[in-house]
Amino acid sequence: MTTRPSAFPGEKAADALNQLRQASPLVHCMTNDVVQSITANVLLALGASPAMVIDSREAAQFSAISSALLVNVGTLTDSRAQSMLAAIHAANNAGKPWVLDPVAVGALSWRSEFCQEIIRLRPAAIRGNASEIMALSGLAASGRGVDSADTSLAALPAAQSLALQIGAIVAVTGEIDYICYGENTCAVSGGDALMTKVVGTGCALSAVVAAFVSLPGDRLSNVAAACRVMSCAGEIASQEAKGPGSFQPAFLDALYSLDAKRLTAKNFRVGEL
Amino acid sequence: MTTRPSAFPGEKAADALNQLRQASPLVHCMTNDVVQSITANVLLALGASPAMVIDSREAAQFSAISSALLVNVGTLTDSRAQSMLAAIHAANNAGKPWVLDPVAVGALSWRSEFCQEIIRLRPAAIRGNASEIMALSGLAASGRGVDSADTSLAALPAAQSLALQIGAIVAVTGEIDYICYGENTCAVSGGDALMTKVVGTGCALSAVVAAFVSLPGDRLSNVAAACRVMSCAGEIASQEAKGPGSFQPAFLDALYSLDAKRLTAKNFRVGEL
Amino acid sequence: MTTRPSAFPGEKAADALNQLRQASPLVHCMTNDVVQSITANVLLALGASPAMVIDSREAAQFSAISSALLVNVGTLTDSRAQSMLAAIHAANNAGKPWVLDPVAVGALSWRSEFCQEIIRLRPAAIRGNASEIMALSGLAASGRGVDSADTSLAALPAAQSLALQIGAIVAVTGEIDYICYGENTCAVSGGDALMTKVVGTGCALSAVVAAFVSLPGDRLSNVAAACRVMSCAGEIASQEAKGPGSFQPAFLDALYSLDAKRLTAKNFRVGEL
Repeated sequence: MTTRPSAFPGEKAADALNQLRQASPLVHCMTNDVVQSITANVLLALGASPAMVIDSREAAQFSAISSALLVNVGTLTDSRAQSMLAAIHAANNAGKPWVLDPVAVGALSWRSEFCQEIIRLRPAAIRGNASEIMALSGLAASGRGVDSADTSLAALPAAQSLALQIGAIVAVTGEIDYICYGENTCAVSGGDALMTKVVGTGCALSAVVAAFVSLPGDRLSNVAAACRVMSCAGEIASQEAKGPGSFQPAFLDALYSLDAKRLTAKNFRVGEL
Repeated sequence: MTTRPSAFPGEKAADALNQLRQASPLVHCMTNDVVQSITANVLLALGASPAMVIDSREAAQFSAISSALLVNVGTLTDSRAQSMLAAIHAANNAGKPWVLDPVAVGALSWRSEFCQEIIRLRPAAIRGNASEIMALSGLAASGRGVDSADTSLAALPAAQSLALQIGAIVAVTGEIDYICYGENTCAVSGGDALMTKVVGTGCALSAVVAAFVSLPGDRLSNVAAACRVMSCAGEIASQEAKGPGSFQPAFLDALYSLDAKRLTAKNFRVGEL
Repeated sequence: MTTRPSAFPGEKAADALNQLRQASPLVHCMTNDVVQSITANVLLALGASPAMVIDSREAAQFSAISSALLVNVGTLTDSRAQSMLAAIHAANNAGKPWVLDPVAVGALSWRSEFCQEIIRLRPAAIRGNASEIMALSGLAASGRGVDSADTSLAALPAAQSLALQIGAIVAVTGEIDYICYGENTCAVSGGDALMTKVVGTGCALSAVVAAFVSLPGDRLSNVAAACRVMSCAGEIASQEAKGPGSFQPAFLDALYSLDAKRLTAKNFRVGEL
């Protein structure tokens, strides 16, 4: 039996963000065709350095010199799967952490097999929506692709079970994000529904998780910080945005200027926990 | 001899948009490298659900569970052509409609052959510019790639002929959009020249056509509604925009908040018909 | 010994921009996965016409009818390398100029070999950051991917040597851009640090270089005009932007409305030369 989720304190998010900006980690993003640009722009806005390299020889070479590797299976192909495997092995050999975003796992067979294969290769963290995490853990889910038809709370047992099973941090994100590691779970609230109307906010979060996971210190706390930084920027942007179009520039601006004051302000939705 | 184009009424566009938002169709987009993000964001802003899946096995599996399939040949490769064929056959077997965007057909030989091959596989609709539709119908055209050097009116006979020939809806879009099916043609005006200065507005329209074509009811009317929703959002956005950069967020915001009032307002350019 | 850099006059940038808008060159962009959209939008905002074609047969066919070809190796794969070679040969046979953006050359082995191979195929121009240009010229560099750890001034000898070696224009860009051809070098200042926080501004500049290189007149001057047009738009956008998110739409708007008045205004940073 795992412990109850504890609310993640804003002070820790602020500390981790400061560390990130000083370290400016180089994040090797092997991600899907749709979100390349927003992923890079989110990392740049936060002060990290993104790079996308996909040839299998180069991906392996690059993972070894990067701070962290992101593997996102959204638009998986045979050749990309080979490159991802090469990059994962190179990252592992070089002692660099890698993060999995299991996009649409459960809804599609081939990528589900591929993800079942690679989660044995010691990812530092997995970030997915409720349906994806339930599918990956072997529990039933009701996703129909990139959307999740389940709430993150419904997937919490699956996330906790998966975290124990493979020894990785598992973040199941939604209206509330739950980040599980071993017997511990912490919860991050915030964000805004507009984030679901802009493609790539979830995928970009996985890249941010990779950036934070490369930092020294407690990894569970660092992954939770990644989630909180994104949800806090989402709250700020939603106050300025007239819709999903104006949300995106406001979101990147918010990430760029995010500070401890905003991250430690009382989060009005924390009562939902 | 086909009938004269009739102006498409805004009330029908508003009804179809309401239906779309309730149904939230899942649109499988096999589209080109350049417009992945704007295509997804346009569908999300309208209330549809986009997903991009490109491996041939997964594309076939996904087409069968999607509401509609979009095939856009903008950055065609051998492996994508194979995946598109697999997805088209799966969509047909599952009774799901598919839509073709014949980007740059006529200007480039291989894709022209490929599109001539797949238009025999019963697309529900084809959406292209004047040059593309003229080339696809076998009539001469003067495109030099993704641009059209002909007006949509010049391509109207080609669109009507193609529609009869293959039994699909054919939408030739430009300053005025003509949507042809059997003996009927309707016309949609509106939009703004700034739309031609933002990459992907035409490609995204094809994805929106796929979303609307999945709805119950009259398909000619649904495709015209797709065209009108986009041209109306273009008008709204152009009033706020200072250029093509600020046009894009304003356009997505306009799609998100588009309502019957705007769609049924007198369209000042309807006199051009 | 090459001559000292001379400051590039704004009047020449304004003249070249006028020419570009009248000619509306068709630029065949073979570029990386991350920057497809911003590259196309930058070219459209300036009045050029972008097109991305990647199949090897089509790429060769298209290069022959385009005004210029861009080759950017950011997300190189085997099949894209083959297509790029086919396109370069077709461009050369048709007498069309091509431009190389050697993304991350030096940091990654395979693309470095590929770029060493293709710079023998008579590019009209090469545009890169300091690390890339130093690596391409055979001098030591300290890049760690897409970032440059060197200043453009430190790379000036490498750029001048490379320009003489291969008989092409070499632009090494950074806080100050140096454009070298034969014994001549000119310098372009301006821009803003926010440009480094938006993915693709450098890659898009290379596409703009391709557009300008297709114009008649002095090529060194045309490439410098490309650099100045982008740095001037960057200055304008940075005055309106609250961060990298709002910078991007403002930048495209600035490119769209850029005029001689702005381009010939005194550039406050020219004193740095």
